Amino acid sequence: MITGVNYQDKISEFVVWAPLLGKISLKITAPLQRVVPMQRAQRGYWRVTLEGIGPETQYVYLLGGDRERPDPASHFQPGGVHQASRVVSHGEFAWSDSDWQGVALSEMIMYELHIGAFTPDGTFEAVVSRLDEIKETGINAIEIMPVAQFPGERNWGYDGVYPYAVQNSYGGPNGLKHLVNECHKRGMAVILDVVYNHLGPEGNYLRDFGPYFTDHYRTPWGEAINFDGPYSNEVRNYFIENAIFWFDYYHIDALRLDAVHGIYDMSAKHFLAELAERVEEYSSDRGRKYYLIAESDLNNSLMARPRDMGGYGVDALWCDDFHHSLHTLLSGERNGYYADFGQTRHFIKSLQEGFVYSGEFSEFRKKNHGNSSKDLPGDHFVVFSQNHDQVGNRMRGERLSSLVSFESLKLAAGAVLLSPYIPLLFMGEEYGETAPFLYFVSHSDRDLIEGIREGRKKEFERFGWKQGFHDPQGIGTYLESRLQWDRRHEGDHTVLLDLYRELIKLRREMKALSQLDKASCDVWEGEGGIVFMRRWAGDNHVMALFNFTRSDMETGPILRAGGWNKVMDSSDTIWQGPGALLPGQIKQDEGVKMRAESFALYQMRDPGGHKRIS
Amino acid sequence: MITGVNYQDKISEFVVWAPLLGKISLKITAPLQRVVPMQRAQRGYWRVTLEGIGPETQYVYLLGGDRERPDPASHFQPGGVHQASRVVSHGEFAWSDSDWQGVALSEMIMYELHIGAFTPDGTFEAVVSRLDEIKETGINAIEIMPVAQFPGERNWGYDGVYPYAVQNSYGGPNGLKHLVNECHKRGMAVILDVVYNHLGPEGNYLRDFGPYFTDHYRTPWGEAINFDGPYSNEVRNYFIENAIFWFDYYHIDALRLDAVHGIYDMSAKHFLAELAERVEEYSSDRGRKYYLIAESDLNNSLMARPRDMGGYGVDALWCDDFHHSLHTLLSGERNGYYADFGQTRHFIKSLQEGFVYSGEFSEFRKKNHGNSSKDLPGDHFVVFSQNHDQVGNRMRGERLSSLVSFESLKLAAGAVLLSPYIPLLFMGEEYGETAPFLYFVSHSDRDLIEGIREGRKKEFERFGWKQGFHDPQGIGTYLESRLQWDRRHEGDHTVLLDLYRELIKLRREMKALSQLDKASCDVWEGEGGIVFMRRWAGDNHVMALFNFTRSDMETGPILRAGGWNKVMDSSDTIWQGPGALLPGQIKQDEGVKMRAESFALYQMRDPGGHKRIS
Repeated sequence: MITGVNYQDKISEFVVWAPLLGKISLKITAPLQRVVPMQRAQRGYWRVTLEGIGPETQYVYLLGGDRERPDPASHFQPGGVHQASRVVSHGEFAWSDSDWQGVALSEMIMYELHIGAFTPDGTFEAVVSRLDEIKETGINAIEIMPVAQFPGERNWGYDGVYPYAVQNSYGGPNGLKHLVNECHKRGMAVILDVVYNHLGPEGNYLRDFGPYFTDHYRTPWGEAINFDGPYSNEVRNYFIENAIFWFDYYHIDALRLDAVHGIYDMSAKHFLAELAERVEEYSSDRGRKYYLIAESDLNNSLMARPRDMGGYGVDALWCDDFHHSLHTLLSGERNGYYADFGQTRHFIKSLQEGFVYSGEFSEFRKKNHGNSSKDLPGDHFVVFSQNHDQVGNRMRGERLSSLVSFESLKLAAGAVLLSPYIPLLFMGEEYGETAPFLYFVSHSDRDLIEGIREGRKKEFERFGWKQGFHDPQGIGTYLESRLQWDRRHEGDHTVLLDLYRELIKLRREMKALSQLDKASCDVWEGEGGIVFMRRWAGDNHVMALFNFTRSDMETGPILRAGGWNKVMDSSDTIWQGPGALLPGQIKQDEGVKMRAESFALYQMRDPGGHKRIS
Repeated sequence: MITGVNYQDKISEFVVWAPLLGKISLKITAPLQRVVPMQRAQRGYWRVTLEGIGPETQYVYLLGGDRERPDPASHFQPGGVHQASRVVSHGEFAWSDSDWQGVALSEMIMYELHIGAFTPDGTFEAVVSRLDEIKETGINAIEIMPVAQFPGERNWGYDGVYPYAVQNSYGGPNGLKHLVNECHKRGMAVILDVVYNHLGPEGNYLRDFGPYFTDHYRTPWGEAINFDGPYSNEVRNYFIENAIFWFDYYHIDALRLDAVHGIYDMSAKHFLAELAERVEEYSSDRGRKYYLIAESDLNNSLMARPRDMGGYGVDALWCDDFHHSLHTLLSGERNGYYADFGQTRHFIKSLQEGFVYSGEFSEFRKKNHGNSSKDLPGDHFVVFSQNHDQVGNRMRGERLSSLVSFESLKLAAGAVLLSPYIPLLFMGEEYGETAPFLYFVSHSDRDLIEGIREGRKKEFERFGWKQGFHDPQGIGTYLESRLQWDRRHEGDHTVLLDLYRELIKLRREMKALSQLDKASCDVWEGEGGIVFMRRWAGDNHVMALFNFTRSDMETGPILRAGGWNKVMDSSDTIWQGPGALLPGQIKQDEGVKMRAESFALYQMRDPGGHKRIS
């Protein structure tokens, strides 16, 4: 059963789920007030069909006759989280993407952006005006941080309380549709971040309708959602229909499932397995693939395995271990969860397998962590050197550009884009944006605001950070976090942008780089800590070298056979580097020198023998 | 690391886990008092090795210098749950089972018994004196309800608080060893019920030692055990070593894992998978198989699947659905969880697949429940018409013998023992014991006692039961629950006993019955609701008929080909029945009549065509 309002040809069907209420009425609040009793349907649903109720109509539900509540499946909250819901006429939007066939997951170059902070205006419309610049870099998939209606005008999006309603301050339903349509026109896919593990703390009226929540489990973000208790079928349905809703009404191509370790479900069929099954059916009906990408803290490869192998069948997982192993090598940081990383072998394992922790003891977690992802294909992992969490959960919200050298920024780009995984860039990363990305909210509840301030302060104190706290509620915190678009055209920033563009182009053009097959990828540590990565596909053989050390290093002998031509070297002066030491050609068994904090890419001249000397 | 005391040749090594304490000492309390500081080892363990400390030694730990606490891994609590622990010299027991090779799970006829209620004495020793009678029935595996030290002298065992200590009032460590040894002498295996989902409410001092518990999850029985949080490696180790301990020190053959749905573990490697892996390694080291059998409320077949298929790899699951579908047909009851059962098709599905709920909507649970167990082999399920829970969680603790007719008791026996699953009998069932099996405890905490009384009353009120409540704490409740051994030799009781014996014998002797292959088992509903079950193995073909109705019924035509000889008919006068209507031989396509509340078993005269008419 699909809840919410289904509007077509001046007829609106209202459906709401409230299994334990004895009475529920629909109250039309505008343009003309009226109250209509809802009829009880099976399994706790209530419905009523009305004529002459159009997109200008606003409404609430009257619970038990008196309590006014917006629709849990509202498609639009023009006045915010505490006000009436509005009927949306989805049929009115003039889509021009009927030929759109999507972008294959394995070919995606993802770009995570926050609607509010991506442009000065902070709207969908303003994003459209920047799409050409993004596309020109080679990016073919934008990933939008959550847009479900949240309290106020400023929020990362994880405090959303109306999973079906597009944030009013971003431009509402039509704004998002326009953005998606414009992306599709440009050959770009749209990934939407959705939150199925909790609802935000302000404006969440779902519990007044029914048992959406459970106290069987405790989440860090508030009440756990009832995925496995009595009445959970309908709660699961609410979220599963939400996924389909984004594909169907907004032409979204893929969903990024936020923090699925917060989805507590002991059922014999896990919610994620049911969701993935439903999305597969939908894809099959539509004749093209819609994707599910999960963020999980559990390092459980089962999530991305086929369901007949006991898996959940999601298409890809965010790989935090890749980030942490790369970030620690680049920054030298070892606090918090970075304590579990920092050695070259961690980065090598992530390039080889995905998860670095595949059952080993984690000092940070004080327990064994994860299982093996060795046999998962490369297109089952999304990797990044930065993302909203890794930047924004630092007290000062520093991007990598404020933490490491320019040489290391290029090295980070190489590590991500030459990896056998799906790369994701965080907005602004491509030109080394220096503005922070801070945690910002705009709640109206004073206690809540104070609680958030104190909570984050405490969290930071655990990491030993005491100076430089930004007030999440302050508007300045948000304003500071916006991209500075002028930077793209300034000095080193332009050089970095060019380097990203070149790497993406190489990744597309070279078969050995575009084929995400871990079986044809060989990674090892050479002398002086240099990481060697060989990848091959057909007769295309490439070798990437990464020097994470702060010194120029001897590589030692490189290959048993074949000769190699250099394709790219981040230390080159054309990339504003100190000048390359690696030669343009490497002959058999030649030891060469490599610049500190650099990467290089070689291509085999004479494909044939491709054994390595370790 | 194995915690507890390892005593050998007058040398005792004391090991205890207390990762967050700054100081811990060992206090020897008898025969001569002394205090010895413990030395900190890695991962939160503390140890000390002392000479001249023997089996007469009693001890406690001094936490932080002052709080006296018994050993969480105590092997013996001679004075009960609140008193000092005692060193046990396991080497002293004279085992005589060195040739023992165990009983294959698929061949087991299990017999669940409660040490305290099985005999008037309520001790291990008293059970030994009855073993010959049990064995004579054909039973080859006793399953002992939990014996881990619990508060007082009377308890089902699920309130145990020392997982390694054998209940003092039952006869302690030597008593259990003697019982196991005597079973093995007689060719009988011993299954021990162990509780790894919670600890009892009285005498649980584990939290004083370390983070054994978590508030991330809520269980119905008290604090959830910390299987996946910080420090959970050592908590998992505590329970995994406990499993090995029973195999190693007590020669236990299999463990029945109580209510594993109470084991909350979101780790990438579930505790049960780790436990099963460890037990497999142990089995492999020992050259014979030790088994794990799980009770679960989740109907999740993954638990019994191989780990490389995403499963946990436990050997078998209790099949409550089989019980419920059988019980409702026999008793006509529909209250509580029985609301989900009661139709012939439920029983048929359980015979065919195991789980009746394999994803369907459960009215009782108000959600979809389970996944398919269709392809799990028959020896992956333990089935029963009664067990301690199904009898004892009724307000009046009625066994089936107090609820249904004598004819139906025989029918129940036939349903369980002719099924393609591992049968389990509940003590006394084999002769139709009429004493109730009630819930009894003997706590010392007044508030706790009152809480238990009120809790159970409320639970029963939910089922509409108001009259006939037995006080769990009252000694009479326990006394009433003991078996009345004289019954075995009285009238109908003896007949029922003979029938069980005969069924077990047939199950052993007939290949079609002993081979637990669901693929060579065909079940369908005939005319008048009669359930037909065909089973075959090699050239042995049998057909069982079950009439659960209260009327004599026409069977309709039975078979396309072949002739059948009757082997057994529960309505026969030799089984004190009203007299058989089914003929001794059935010829082709013959319709015959069958007695109400009866079963019959036929064997094919001319094995060949075995197609059924449905």
